[in-house]
Amino acid sequence: MTFIKPYLIRLSHCDPTGFVFYPNYFHIFNALVEDWFYEALEIPFDEFLMQRRLSLPTVRLETTFTKPTKMGEVVDFWLTVTHVGRTSLRLTMGVDKDSEQRVRMNRITVCLSQETDRPVDIPDDVREKILEFMRG
Amino acid sequence: MTFIKPYLIRLSHCDPTGFVFYPNYFHIFNALVEDWFYEALEIPFDEFLMQRRLSLPTVRLETTFTKPTKMGEVVDFWLTVTHVGRTSLRLTMGVDKDSEQRVRMNRITVCLSQETDRPVDIPDDVREKILEFMRG
Amino acid sequence: MTFIKPYLIRLSHCDPTGFVFYPNYFHIFNALVEDWFYEALEIPFDEFLMQRRLSLPTVRLETTFTKPTKMGEVVDFWLTVTHVGRTSLRLTMGVDKDSEQRVRMNRITVCLSQETDRPVDIPDDVREKILEFMRG
Amino acid sequence: MTFIKPYLIRLSHCDPTGFVFYPNYFHIFNALVEDWFYEALEIPFDEFLMQRRLSLPTVRLETTFTKPTKMGEVVDFWLTVTHVGRTSLRLTMGVDKDSEQRVRMNRITVCLSQETDRPVDIPDDVREKILEFMRG
Repeated sequence: MTFIKPYLIRLSHCDPTGFVFYPNYFHIFNALVEDWFYEALEIPFDEFLMQRRLSLPTVRLETTFTKPTKMGEVVDFWLTVTHVGRTSLRLTMGVDKDSEQRVRMNRITVCLSQETDRPVDIPDDVREKILEFMRG
Repeated sequence: MTFIKPYLIRLSHCDPTGFVFYPNYFHIFNALVEDWFYEALEIPFDEFLMQRRLSLPTVRLETTFTKPTKMGEVVDFWLTVTHVGRTSLRLTMGVDKDSEQRVRMNRITVCLSQETDRPVDIPDDVREKILEFMRG
Repeated sequence: MTFIKPYLIRLSHCDPTGFVFYPNYFHIFNALVEDWFYEALEIPFDEFLMQRRLSLPTVRLETTFTKPTKMGEVVDFWLTVTHVGRTSLRLTMGVDKDSEQRVRMNRITVCLSQETDRPVDIPDDVREKILEFMRG
Repeated sequence: MTFIKPYLIRLSHCDPTGFVFYPNYFHIFNALVEDWFYEALEIPFDEFLMQRRLSLPTVRLETTFTKPTKMGEVVDFWLTVTHVGRTSLRLTMGVDKDSEQRVRMNRITVCLSQETDRPVDIPDDVREKILEFMRG
């Protein structure tokens, strides 16, 4: 299953060339992961971080920028899960506009304990929700 | 005494108009306060926050933007202390270029405990360093 | 009339204290002004900037931060127009949660030509829409 | 030759976990490229963009995050050029602390005309300076 959400490209995302400043894509991709937690997995991302004291830091990113995006465009950000390991998660994410590819990203994240700063197993309830989303 | 430091205006500070996007001034003003702690007060700002579990949230801001600043300019950010209360600190800050005023800001911050989220007395050693800076 | 919109406070808005880093409030206030243009005035903000070559830089800000906001909270950002001058616009904006005040801001912006970098009259159609919004 | 520069990790770079929020690494990597232009190539990056109307958008990124970095750390950001094509540039960049690897990035950028939004040859003077840096 794919989680898709449109985001408006704002003034604050763009630099003097008029196009998205590429680090800001990663800010929106992070918003997308939060919204996927809240809306698709129905797990409050803030509780995952602040109450459970876990985090999902990125360990590996591969990103291809095919076509620039400018202020005022509404573009689709999407996310699929390509693999759930014991402690890690592989996501494929993208930005499309009218079925045309703008950005593609493969991202590996690891479930980390904020108490020990070490990888821990993805909690069972989170894993279950992710698997359910994948079957989707 | 006045703490002055030049900062380069970067691509990431500017929006499609080519000028600094105003929220980014506050990012640089915050960098200035950090640098004032490290360089003028000689108090590591990260220890103040993370070891001592204090913070200095802003409770009041008044800012006047007189003239825009564009990418590639090196401008002087400066800071003076106008008042040290028991728990609060009043700063006047500005951005100048060749003695010409770009931005002026009055800012009131309060010393807060991150344990209780309530105001606490500014620690004696910090107060002493601030008074010394003011006598300057 | 008041334009009100809920925004989710995200990880990227917050600093190591766990609360919103205050410059990020201004990023969201700017999103609010954009959304007010798109949704309430029905004037595309990107056209206002990029096709008409106008901008609305801030010349004066007064902001009071009453209570901090933390990651995961959904808070109401709102905007009213207190005055429309020939070239300037006065907005009062705020952040509330359950009718409790978090942030208050008075902001004066000026309509600027990106061609001359000088103030110009607010275009008639924009003024008309703003007056209509004020009558509400 | 390698261009190395220490950067202080600030409050604004870090999220509620206390560590750098990964999109902010890319903001600093972009600052590094600007500083490389100004300081090593001695080509003003703002002129490259605003007068010459060129840009250097990223078309491909591969990034590995090995170890997190927290507020208050001063870490070395570095850059080497691995290839200069006719219109493209391959950079390898990293973040190290005490010779320990924190981040590694391979990045391909393309020289673009802001007039046509199409790739153009890297200007001769820029290519010459880059080759000189590589021999360096």
